[in-house]
Amino acid sequence: MNKKQLFEQIQKKKSFLCVGLDPVLDKLPKHLLKYNDPILEFNKQLIDATQDLCVAYKPNTAFYESRGVKGWETLVKTWQHFPKDVFTIADAKRGDIGNTSAMYAEAFFNEESSEMSFDSITVAPYMGEDSISPFLAYPNKWVILLALTSNNGSKDFQVQQIGDQKLYEKVIKTSSQWANSDQLMYVVGATKAHEFQHIRQLAPDNFILVPGVGAQGGSLADVCAYGLNTQCGLLVNAARSIIYASNGLDFADKAREEALRMQQEMEQILIAAKLV
Amino acid sequence: MNKKQLFEQIQKKKSFLCVGLDPVLDKLPKHLLKYNDPILEFNKQLIDATQDLCVAYKPNTAFYESRGVKGWETLVKTWQHFPKDVFTIADAKRGDIGNTSAMYAEAFFNEESSEMSFDSITVAPYMGEDSISPFLAYPNKWVILLALTSNNGSKDFQVQQIGDQKLYEKVIKTSSQWANSDQLMYVVGATKAHEFQHIRQLAPDNFILVPGVGAQGGSLADVCAYGLNTQCGLLVNAARSIIYASNGLDFADKAREEALRMQQEMEQILIAAKLV
Repeated sequence: MNKKQLFEQIQKKKSFLCVGLDPVLDKLPKHLLKYNDPILEFNKQLIDATQDLCVAYKPNTAFYESRGVKGWETLVKTWQHFPKDVFTIADAKRGDIGNTSAMYAEAFFNEESSEMSFDSITVAPYMGEDSISPFLAYPNKWVILLALTSNNGSKDFQVQQIGDQKLYEKVIKTSSQWANSDQLMYVVGATKAHEFQHIRQLAPDNFILVPGVGAQGGSLADVCAYGLNTQCGLLVNAARSIIYASNGLDFADKAREEALRMQQEMEQILIAAKLV
Repeated sequence: MNKKQLFEQIQKKKSFLCVGLDPVLDKLPKHLLKYNDPILEFNKQLIDATQDLCVAYKPNTAFYESRGVKGWETLVKTWQHFPKDVFTIADAKRGDIGNTSAMYAEAFFNEESSEMSFDSITVAPYMGEDSISPFLAYPNKWVILLALTSNNGSKDFQVQQIGDQKLYEKVIKTSSQWANSDQLMYVVGATKAHEFQHIRQLAPDNFILVPGVGAQGGSLADVCAYGLNTQCGLLVNAARSIIYASNGLDFADKAREEALRMQQEMEQILIAAKLV
C-alpha cells in the first residue's frame, strides 16, 4: 500500500487506528481453547470485529515466535486473514548486515518465499544504512524505523547527546537521506508526546507509528496536538486495551466497542484538523 | 553453558571457532536437493564434519525465516542436531520493550515453548536495559550485545561521538552495569581489529563474538593480537568460507578442511598465549 492509498483509507474510515495483535495463550478467553489454533481464532474474530474501524494491523512477531513452529504458522495464517484494504505491519524490529537484511526482507515482504507479504516492517537503526536498504528495494513496501520508543530503556541510548542533537534525532536526520516519506516511517512512543512538535520539524512528511496509547499510559490528544500533518501522518497503535477488553464470550464485541471509542475520538480530531 | 565450561571446551578443542550456519538454497550442493529438507541435510552434514574443530554454532535466523514455516522447522531441527558440548548462538538481533523481549526469550531459550533452547542470542542495544534484562533472567543463558559491527553501516551511528566516547563504547560501558561477563558478550566485527585494544580496556573479561573473518575480509591474527584475554575471550565466526568451501559432493570434507585450517591457526595462537 502506498502513501496516497493509506491516506485514502484514513479518510474513508475516519480513523488512524492500528490494532496490535500481540496474543498470549494464557490471556485468551477460555472458550477459544477448544479450537485447533486458539490464537488464530482469537485474531480472526478480532480482525472481523474491528476491520472497518482501523486502518492497520500490527502483529508483534515475538508473540508468535515464542510458540515455535506452530506460532509461525499462526502468524502466516493471521496475515492471510487480513483484509486487502488494511495496512499491515510486521512488528519484528529486525536489522542486520545487508545480505542478512535481504533475507529478512524475503521473510516479511516476499510471499513466494515465506507465504507472507506485509506492507511494512519495524527495523532497529543501530547497524546503519545497509541494514535498512534491502527492505527499500521492494516497491510500495515500508521501513518503520525505531526512533524514540515508549519504554524506560529509551533513555539509555536514544536520548544521548551527539553534538547538538540526540541520537534519535540523528537517526531521523540521517535515515531521511536513505528514503523519503513514501517508504519510511518512524516509531515514536506515545509516552513521548512532548517531543512530537520537535520530531515533526525533523520529519514533516513521514508517517509516525505511535505505540503506547492505552495500557502504556500515553494520551491520544497529546500526540495529535503536535503529531498530525497534512496527510494525517499518524498511525496510533493500541493492543492490550482492545484485544483484552474482555476475556469472556463477548471479547470480540468488547474489542469492537473499544476500537469504536478510539475511532470516534480520532474522527473528531480529523474533523477539527480539516483532514476529513 | 557457563563461562567456565566454555573455556574448558576451548582448551579441549584448542579452538575458538564458531561456524555460522547461514544457508541459502540456491548455493547448496545440487545433490542435496533430493532430500525432503535440503538445508537441514546440509546443516547436519556440516555439523557432523566440524563439531570436533569448533566450540560454537551460530545460525542466523534470517536465513531460516526467509523460508517461512518450513524454514523455522529447519531451524528447530538444526538446533536439535547440535551436540551437547557446543555453545549455541541464535543470531537473531532481537530487542524490544520488556514484555516483548520476554517473549523473544521464550522463543530462543525456553524449549517447552518453542522446542529450542540456545545458549545465547544476539541483541540490538537501541531500546536499552529493559529490552535486554528478560534474557538475563535465564540462568546460564547469554546476551550477545551488538557493539561495533563489521558492516559499512556501522559508521552511521555506532561510532558517533557522545561526549568523550563513541556510541558503541557507551553501549559497552552502560550494559556492563546490567550484567557481568558471565552472561554478557559483545559483537565486534573482525574488520575493526584496530579497535580491539581499546575495547579490551572497556570489557576486559567479556567474551567477544567476532564475525567478519574470511569472506568479509577481517584478519584472525589482527583480532587476536589485542582481543585475547586470560580465558581466551574470543569466539571467531566464519560462515561462507566454511559452509561454501565446495558446492560439490565433497562439500562437508572441504568444510572440514577449512575448519581444520582455522582450528590449527587458533591452536598456535592459544599456545603462544599460554592458554593451552
